[in-house]
Amino acid sequence: MGDRCKVVIVGDEFMSYFCNTMNLCWFLLPELDNAIRTLHRVVGNAMVDDDRFIIVGNGSTQLFHALLYALSSPDLPEPINVVAAAPFYSSYPEETKFLRSKLYKWAGDANCYDKDEPYIEVVTSPNNPDGSIRGTVVNREGGKAIHDLAYYWPQYAPITSKADHDAMLFTFSKATGHAGTRIGWAIVKDKVIAAKMVKFIEVSSIGVSREAQLRAAKILGVIADDCRNLDLKGENFFEYGRRLMSERWGKLRELGMKSNGVFSLPKYPRGYCKFTGEYTDSNPGI
Amino acid sequence: MGDRCKVVIVGDEFMSYFCNTMNLCWFLLPELDNAIRTLHRVVGNAMVDDDRFIIVGNGSTQLFHALLYALSSPDLPEPINVVAAAPFYSSYPEETKFLRSKLYKWAGDANCYDKDEPYIEVVTSPNNPDGSIRGTVVNREGGKAIHDLAYYWPQYAPITSKADHDAMLFTFSKATGHAGTRIGWAIVKDKVIAAKMVKFIEVSSIGVSREAQLRAAKILGVIADDCRNLDLKGENFFEYGRRLMSERWGKLRELGMKSNGVFSLPKYPRGYCKFTGEYTDSNPGI
Repeated sequence: MGDRCKVVIVGDEFMSYFCNTMNLCWFLLPELDNAIRTLHRVVGNAMVDDDRFIIVGNGSTQLFHALLYALSSPDLPEPINVVAAAPFYSSYPEETKFLRSKLYKWAGDANCYDKDEPYIEVVTSPNNPDGSIRGTVVNREGGKAIHDLAYYWPQYAPITSKADHDAMLFTFSKATGHAGTRIGWAIVKDKVIAAKMVKFIEVSSIGVSREAQLRAAKILGVIADDCRNLDLKGENFFEYGRRLMSERWGKLRELGMKSNGVFSLPKYPRGYCKFTGEYTDSNPGI
Repeated sequence: MGDRCKVVIVGDEFMSYFCNTMNLCWFLLPELDNAIRTLHRVVGNAMVDDDRFIIVGNGSTQLFHALLYALSSPDLPEPINVVAAAPFYSSYPEETKFLRSKLYKWAGDANCYDKDEPYIEVVTSPNNPDGSIRGTVVNREGGKAIHDLAYYWPQYAPITSKADHDAMLFTFSKATGHAGTRIGWAIVKDKVIAAKMVKFIEVSSIGVSREAQLRAAKILGVIADDCRNLDLKGENFFEYGRRLMSERWGKLRELGMKSNGVFSLPKYPRGYCKFTGEYTDSNPGI
């Protein structure tokens, strides 16, 4: 992309802790807030109405921790149960357990969860590691959910509808591949939950690097601009990514067929992608 | 500083999680490692022999959490006690308490600590909020300590000796004022402690923004270069900062005298600063 995605920062810029004291998430750079909402509107993969809160984190990993904190309560007699349907992202158990918090505890496979106690279900869709499209499996009244939508972008899966959950996680590392920038964001409906997440990030790292946010804002902004540009010559970012992923999965499937059953690959249903306007396959990026 | 402190990052740089797979702290940018060690050598405020580990964090706040995790143990029957001599940095109690960990707990003023149990003493020197120069006060065998040296730079206090503690914290926000970058570093003697800290930062945020690290490396590098440059015209960064802080404290002291005892300011002992080569006053930056 040449100079279009270049960021330049001089020595005396970005010195303050504060990005926007008028915002609940006071450490969120307004340019990033704007780029995130614009991109979701262009892609159509998540609801970002103005009354939803965007919370930025040091990767979506930090926001997962922030959500555990925000969805649990010191007033409960026992730590809240955290579950996910197997197979699940391998880091969830350790992330939940490693500080031995009295607020929450890992409770294993959501498919086997039968306790009549408060719980948080973590739903990853498309799922890491198997690429499947998922919803909650426990579905008990009062149950809480974290929807990790890291891979819900057009290069990986058809965008069949706008995700509209209470708490959704996205990350720069999977949207565009910029893992080293450590930028994730949550889209949250409830103000009290959003405020508790902000508190978590304040107490654990006093916000998020402004340099990292500026770079994410710039790159997400250029991608959104290209997707909206009817005069664009060539592919936009997601078309390019989808073509590459599709070629790679094609090679894998060929090898699978030649392997005489030594290894096999899952089949994914085709879906109508509202972003591309055609039926597309899943090309999981895990 | 014009262009000397400018950083330029193009769209496809810095995409990987990994900065240096040969280093225990695999997410530390080698340029930042180098700039930190060089600056401490030039200023003489901390031991940074090659066998010490540098761990980068999302601000020194995240490294404080990482040290609580690294210095505690799930094998102890009770959470380890965390103490600090009053008056202490107002965030320490909340940072220690908010996740209700079974690994550590806040145990209040170190001056009143009389339990015969494992403990971690947090020592901030120069101290936040009062600028005093401090050491540990509990001093019991097997006691552990975290030395927060955020303000131990020549613009705030005379550099009387090279700090040489097991675990020392520094932060870009106080060294140069770049709070928005969220870069802190720990200098750690023990490899097992360093490895546990790395683990903490992996599980809580999978590392630290490379953009933020690049900028800190650049700015700390320019400051170190100027301090070593015998042909430098005008003041180096710390001389400039010390002059400003000294002028501000001068104005405050004048107002204090005119206030007829309505408010008073503490007196700090002069000390021989090995960096400037003269006796200097403390000009706390809190």
